[in-house]
Amino acid sequence: MYKSEKLANSLKLLIENGTWKANEKLPSLRHQAEQSGFSLITVMNAYQELEAQGLIYSKEKSGYFVVGQQPSNDEQNQNVTLNPKIEINSTVFQYLKSIQPDNIIPFGTAFPNSQLLYSPKLIQTLGQLARHRLSYEQTPSLPPGNFALRKLIAQRYCMQGIQTDPSDIVITSGGLDALNLSLQAMTQAGDYILLQQTIFYGAWQAAERLGLKVITIPEHPEHGIDLNAFEQAIQKYPIKVCLLMLNGHNPIGFTVSDEIKFQLAKLLHQYEIHLIEDDVYEELYYDHKKPLSMKYFDQQNLVLHCSSFSKTLGAGFRVGWVYAGKFSEHIQHIQLMSTLSVNSFIQNALVEYLSHRHYEKHLKSLRSSLERNKKQFYAYLTEHLPPVCKIAYYPSGYFLWIELPQYIESVYIYQMLLARNISIAPSVLFNANFAKQNNFLRINCSFDFNDRIESALSQVVECIQYAINNHPVR
Amino acid sequence: MYKSEKLANSLKLLIENGTWKANEKLPSLRHQAEQSGFSLITVMNAYQELEAQGLIYSKEKSGYFVVGQQPSNDEQNQNVTLNPKIEINSTVFQYLKSIQPDNIIPFGTAFPNSQLLYSPKLIQTLGQLARHRLSYEQTPSLPPGNFALRKLIAQRYCMQGIQTDPSDIVITSGGLDALNLSLQAMTQAGDYILLQQTIFYGAWQAAERLGLKVITIPEHPEHGIDLNAFEQAIQKYPIKVCLLMLNGHNPIGFTVSDEIKFQLAKLLHQYEIHLIEDDVYEELYYDHKKPLSMKYFDQQNLVLHCSSFSKTLGAGFRVGWVYAGKFSEHIQHIQLMSTLSVNSFIQNALVEYLSHRHYEKHLKSLRSSLERNKKQFYAYLTEHLPPVCKIAYYPSGYFLWIELPQYIESVYIYQMLLARNISIAPSVLFNANFAKQNNFLRINCSFDFNDRIESALSQVVECIQYAINNHPVR
Repeated sequence: MYKSEKLANSLKLLIENGTWKANEKLPSLRHQAEQSGFSLITVMNAYQELEAQGLIYSKEKSGYFVVGQQPSNDEQNQNVTLNPKIEINSTVFQYLKSIQPDNIIPFGTAFPNSQLLYSPKLIQTLGQLARHRLSYEQTPSLPPGNFALRKLIAQRYCMQGIQTDPSDIVITSGGLDALNLSLQAMTQAGDYILLQQTIFYGAWQAAERLGLKVITIPEHPEHGIDLNAFEQAIQKYPIKVCLLMLNGHNPIGFTVSDEIKFQLAKLLHQYEIHLIEDDVYEELYYDHKKPLSMKYFDQQNLVLHCSSFSKTLGAGFRVGWVYAGKFSEHIQHIQLMSTLSVNSFIQNALVEYLSHRHYEKHLKSLRSSLERNKKQFYAYLTEHLPPVCKIAYYPSGYFLWIELPQYIESVYIYQMLLARNISIAPSVLFNANFAKQNNFLRINCSFDFNDRIESALSQVVECIQYAINNHPVR
Repeated sequence: MYKSEKLANSLKLLIENGTWKANEKLPSLRHQAEQSGFSLITVMNAYQELEAQGLIYSKEKSGYFVVGQQPSNDEQNQNVTLNPKIEINSTVFQYLKSIQPDNIIPFGTAFPNSQLLYSPKLIQTLGQLARHRLSYEQTPSLPPGNFALRKLIAQRYCMQGIQTDPSDIVITSGGLDALNLSLQAMTQAGDYILLQQTIFYGAWQAAERLGLKVITIPEHPEHGIDLNAFEQAIQKYPIKVCLLMLNGHNPIGFTVSDEIKFQLAKLLHQYEIHLIEDDVYEELYYDHKKPLSMKYFDQQNLVLHCSSFSKTLGAGFRVGWVYAGKFSEHIQHIQLMSTLSVNSFIQNALVEYLSHRHYEKHLKSLRSSLERNKKQFYAYLTEHLPPVCKIAYYPSGYFLWIELPQYIESVYIYQMLLARNISIAPSVLFNANFAKQNNFLRINCSFDFNDRIESALSQVVECIQYAINNHPVR
């Protein structure tokens, strides 16, 4: 046994028997070295080992501390996971490159069918704007972005009963930029953040880029988010900020109920934890009423709400925003050091477009097309996939999340289908902890159900069936 | 005297008397502590003190090393500066906010007069594109960006005799994004970079954001860049990459000659140092021939060339690029984790616009308007400013760089003029070392010289005259 391991074990005992209590500061490295007779390096290795085991945590310039509430049994321990160093970006990069060619049936893409996003009125507005020299603003609108656009976005919040002011809003280069800026404003390298175990890869990439430690909580089969695991995680780790998707979750599709959101807001308040809410699918609900965002339940200005026009008008525009509240100025500072500002021509066009309520009409027709298409995909797959596969259907968005038998890795299905010029999104893209949940895949159902689509879907079914039939563990 | 200071002084002696030689590794902290009997903290403080004095440098995970070639006299020492921790972004942010209002005469802005950038053909193209549903691409073009646009940009390089391929080019959200991505791809926090002592504040902001240590070299009065200081700097510090402006330098305005560029390329080659070239003013020359970029002289793929359409067609478009060569894939990775991609609608419009050579015609007229306006500004200021002020006139771009007497801080002029709704850019924005060169200011001369402009310029003269007359040191 290495010296450091020996030391780590003896220190572990002190934590487990309660000699060192939750959030208590451990002796400094030097002090510990002097006391124990071990070298400084040995002590450092032992502390790092304990940190990796989730027993202690480090605060920059302050030293090491005991984590709160030790898990009392294994079951609890499974709920909250400290993820290993995140290295997902290369996987995502290779994946996105692989599904880029034009001739691929894009069931793997995250972008909705662009034909459904086509809004003649927006095009008309762009055309009119382009013809008028005066309305064509070439000076970039500096952070926080076009005032009229921020005002219109603020009005949309107010329609949902959320008090807002244009000064709360910062326009960003799409939703991913909004997430990145928010996360960068609230964290420093080495900080702990909390994510859902399965979430949009952009969240993982942001954590990787910023060098953050990621704690994950599993999905709740009924409520979408597991509040017990959530509370355990914030008790156990010094979480700086949470990043969650609660409406039309990508990739799974669920929308968390108002009741659970209310409870979550209470927890945020109780523990004074900030939340970055990725809500880019907020408009793609099928029910009568738009789901509420966490911002609605947020009385203490703890929530940064991120959204965009990418899923409704086209990701090519690169216009998103964050309801940043008191973080607005900090976010603008970072923006000024990176992308500077957002295309002003498109911002002007959106102002004109949103002012005439064309957007509402467009959204209504978009939602009904998405619902029709997703239902057809669901019906086909339910009928043809082997019963051992489970399909999660939720009334929003355009994704179906399919669970294969546990012994089938969905990456294998992805590879087989790519050879047939069909893409799907395997679960490794949404979960940086590769050991878990490798048997899921996401299908984009935004395409009009026709013969070409049906034939491609039949090949998806065929490949899955083949993998199941030929697997030794079956 | 503190213990650490005492230790630092004794170590300094070992370096100065040659016991420890250039690039030699110093004893590890622990080893030094054991040997000297001082505590680890004391040793660390002493090493950091020596690092701050520019005598040693640190490499992550490797320890401390002696810097090369000690300056033999004070004169040499003045050439190369290790700048203190950079904190310029807040200054720039406050400044940009202050000059934003519409009613301000914008002599302080970095953007050219948007009336001169207005290209009817581009507007026509945007309008036509907007009317055609099929040509309106809503899926974002992932990194490296629109292929046809990259091809057209590559062709423009070839026209200057620079071998290029579309795969070398990465489209970015403007020139600042190109600089940021390049710098991020080539450095890690704590690395040394080399900048010109006076340079566009975006370069300083990028260094601040990425936590880089900045070495600066002064401008050469005749050649623009001081090659001796440049060589001294790369000999003395482990420079990871240089970031320079050589054509239509912002804020000063000079363009470095081919001969000096050739010499610079030789130095880059000799020391195997990479260069990020900020060349966003490359098209705004007044002479017959476009100045060559460093890329032309670069045989070893050491230069990343950054440019954009912001200074020629409008910064509001947010379309720039970097000739990234072998760094292309790394830059795309970072892009995928941050802004994802660039507005695809505008990229399509630029493809159409550039394909028909409208751009050349536009540039020709833009250049002649800028030259006319700048000459008028120069004539007025030369006639009216007190002779103690020196005005640098260079035949490119749209800036005049004015040197006030050394006892006048240009920030003071900026404040006086702002109260009269006129902006200028004081030198503190371009030099993070606040102790130096506080007596310069930049004037944007891209505006058509009319009564309003003349009256504003007369107020600039008046304020400068007032400051000189009423200064106690005069």
